[in-house]
Amino acid sequence: MELHDFGIVGLGVMGRNLLLNMADHHFAVAGLDLDTEKVASLKTEASEGHRVHGTNSAEEFAGMLKTPRAIMLLVPAGKPVDSAIHSLLPFLESGDIIIDGGNSQFTDTDRRVTELAEKNIHFFGMGISGGEKGARFGPSMMPGGNKEAYERLRPIFEAVAAKVNGEPCVEYLGNGSAGHYVKMVHNGIEYGIMQLISEAYDLMKRGLRLSDEKIQQTFSDWDQSELKSFLIEITAEVLNKVDDETGKHLVNLISDRARAKGTGKWTSQNAMDLQVPVPVIDAAVMMRDISTYKNERIEAEKAFPFAIPTEYADNADDIIDSIKHALYFAMLTTYAQGLAQLKVASNTYNYDLRLEEVAKIWRGGCIIRAVCLEDFRKAYSRNPDLANILLDKEIGEQVIAREKAIRSVVKLGVDMGIPLAALMSSLAYFDSYRSAQLPTNLIQAQRDYFGAHQYERTDREGIFHTHWD
Amino acid sequence: MELHDFGIVGLGVMGRNLLLNMADHHFAVAGLDLDTEKVASLKTEASEGHRVHGTNSAEEFAGMLKTPRAIMLLVPAGKPVDSAIHSLLPFLESGDIIIDGGNSQFTDTDRRVTELAEKNIHFFGMGISGGEKGARFGPSMMPGGNKEAYERLRPIFEAVAAKVNGEPCVEYLGNGSAGHYVKMVHNGIEYGIMQLISEAYDLMKRGLRLSDEKIQQTFSDWDQSELKSFLIEITAEVLNKVDDETGKHLVNLISDRARAKGTGKWTSQNAMDLQVPVPVIDAAVMMRDISTYKNERIEAEKAFPFAIPTEYADNADDIIDSIKHALYFAMLTTYAQGLAQLKVASNTYNYDLRLEEVAKIWRGGCIIRAVCLEDFRKAYSRNPDLANILLDKEIGEQVIAREKAIRSVVKLGVDMGIPLAALMSSLAYFDSYRSAQLPTNLIQAQRDYFGAHQYERTDREGIFHTHWD
Repeated sequence: MELHDFGIVGLGVMGRNLLLNMADHHFAVAGLDLDTEKVASLKTEASEGHRVHGTNSAEEFAGMLKTPRAIMLLVPAGKPVDSAIHSLLPFLESGDIIIDGGNSQFTDTDRRVTELAEKNIHFFGMGISGGEKGARFGPSMMPGGNKEAYERLRPIFEAVAAKVNGEPCVEYLGNGSAGHYVKMVHNGIEYGIMQLISEAYDLMKRGLRLSDEKIQQTFSDWDQSELKSFLIEITAEVLNKVDDETGKHLVNLISDRARAKGTGKWTSQNAMDLQVPVPVIDAAVMMRDISTYKNERIEAEKAFPFAIPTEYADNADDIIDSIKHALYFAMLTTYAQGLAQLKVASNTYNYDLRLEEVAKIWRGGCIIRAVCLEDFRKAYSRNPDLANILLDKEIGEQVIAREKAIRSVVKLGVDMGIPLAALMSSLAYFDSYRSAQLPTNLIQAQRDYFGAHQYERTDREGIFHTHWD
Repeated sequence: MELHDFGIVGLGVMGRNLLLNMADHHFAVAGLDLDTEKVASLKTEASEGHRVHGTNSAEEFAGMLKTPRAIMLLVPAGKPVDSAIHSLLPFLESGDIIIDGGNSQFTDTDRRVTELAEKNIHFFGMGISGGEKGARFGPSMMPGGNKEAYERLRPIFEAVAAKVNGEPCVEYLGNGSAGHYVKMVHNGIEYGIMQLISEAYDLMKRGLRLSDEKIQQTFSDWDQSELKSFLIEITAEVLNKVDDETGKHLVNLISDRARAKGTGKWTSQNAMDLQVPVPVIDAAVMMRDISTYKNERIEAEKAFPFAIPTEYADNADDIIDSIKHALYFAMLTTYAQGLAQLKVASNTYNYDLRLEEVAKIWRGGCIIRAVCLEDFRKAYSRNPDLANILLDKEIGEQVIAREKAIRSVVKLGVDMGIPLAALMSSLAYFDSYRSAQLPTNLIQAQRDYFGAHQYERTDREGIFHTHWD
């Protein structure tokens, strides 16, 4: 048997699809899964000309691969990753590469990089975004690890990645856990934008009482504007879906208890460790959490009932236009927060990220792909050290043009009683980021008052403490 | 020499003050510190009749204490706590009690409880709030650990704690790290309320352009109302303080880069782990973080300048009244979030907390003491299983009475461009908590679309997946 170019461990949906994607591009790929049914179905799904083979033996799998080996794990994050590594190790050699293509916590990735480096095995953490379809036909891929080792992976990754204007949505990002860190923040931004979209939807649905058709058409229209993005596109498709059995719009039959796999939460928690403000992501995590309190919410609505005025309907088209601009304003600030987090993380963890490359590979394939990513890429191209994309003149102009809209939409939500946690957080972020002087001097004074925590002064150097009472 | 009732390790401000407080109440107390100057100054500060002695030898210290020993550590959180335990251990016996009176992370406390239980030593995590003055004249104390062992500590703790209507602000709270957990959330609420006060201040200072005297008088007036609380009281005092050297109001000379010791951040991070929404605390943590970006903020204000209208000044007194009611609304929701977190944490970590007791001991001595705590205590007395204090009828009525005010104040901030991250989060929390139906059904549909994450339906049982496109 010919030796294979690449190996994939874990033949679930993601693993199988990525394997077939590689086979489409004429690579010979071996698959390993303990489940013999999954191994068998690989054969069935492969097309003629595909050079793919599967096995349920780690030893046989290792023997099927060209050396130095390149093996990607597509198993659930956590212990399964360690188990998979453990089962492979006896059959690997110095110089082999293991790539973790799952959503592992970046601290786990750092640990594994160190552990495997002792055995001269390169460990890559690689974020992959795009869902099952992306894996099959072109995902966005975010690899981090040893730079020289990456050169061996580059041809295959560039072949299978999504393309935008002919450029592949994969780039070597940096050392250690850089890839998984970037993917974590990608998912944090994803949480933020999904929450923002749900608030725009809520304003139209509960607030303006628009028909499902009208709301669906609105998202469909927005996807032809500067809002054009994967998440807006699928929102229009979701709202269009009719339930086969009931004939009703399916979205209206879905439980509002939102689930989460944790990457958004990790983004917020790590941002707090790094002291990076990401309030839209925090709000998105919070709203998924509060959605789980269904029984309390039902009880609370009885105690605090809604009385949304009907007068807004007369003015619906103007309001829809404002919501559109408010949503775009808020999306820009959400990317700004995530990208600012990457900048601080890169300094803290020595990733040496180039944010232009991050914006470039997020333009296609991934869940947060959007036409505005090209604008961000250009902004970083103009100034690679940009502290925050809001400080780029062209992005700043896009924001200013929509400031009035987000203010009017937030006030509208306040009057209606519609919760706009993420839209509000976007505006609060903007207004605090552009405040040369914040009222936090009062907080410093209070801290010194009750805890003798000391303070700095604006009129001279030093650390001071006052007996306030 | 007579044997001492209690030992304190670490004779910094907190340790020394608590020791003298105990001596005031006729307990014989021994102090241990490696710094001989601190040991010596103990003697100087002790009054006649105080039975206090200090040493810099752990062995001598252990010999000075009645057995079974009761020893409190007041050393910085982290490694110093482990070092102090390590230095004491050779001289301790089965049944001795060590109490950590610092702001340790609750997970460290759980580890220490387990490690010391193997040596038959009881380890207590005890939150102490009230700053230096509280320690000296009556703090609020939040102990957790072995219940029987607590009975030996009770007389001394009840003697030295703050009193409200004759009731001491200390109660046995629960197992393991219960005490430190409650203190962590106390501090999270403290962060939230401090941020809310700073926003009210900002609205009056930057927004209404009121004089420092007028703002000072306003906080002073508020401290005679339902807002009466330690943090409002000290805000009035802080705003009253004139800098000796410049003759200016000192607060205006203090840097707006806020610092933090981490307890607020831990509260938010753990709330995310427990899926408890605490958005006001999240916003407070975020605002301290954004305050550190001074140079970027200066640059951003140039790009996005303020243009706050002057027209509001004509109506200042009405607006001040609305700010007062909005602040109270937001304070209520902040306590609601923290107390809800305690309820979930108690179930998760088996603390068996009684929230009535928590409200009781927070009424006095601590930083978040406020007259409204008595209302919360009564609410939990009426219904010990109350899921959220907003669902108590009397608290609910207080909230409803101020709903119009917070809506008008948030809209005012939006118009002015004053960032109101915490006030907005309070309102968003209220409006989402009282939404029987949230738009998170759309998020569940999107997740199923791109990630095959499945969803539940409202019209029948089961887990579903749809091919959306």
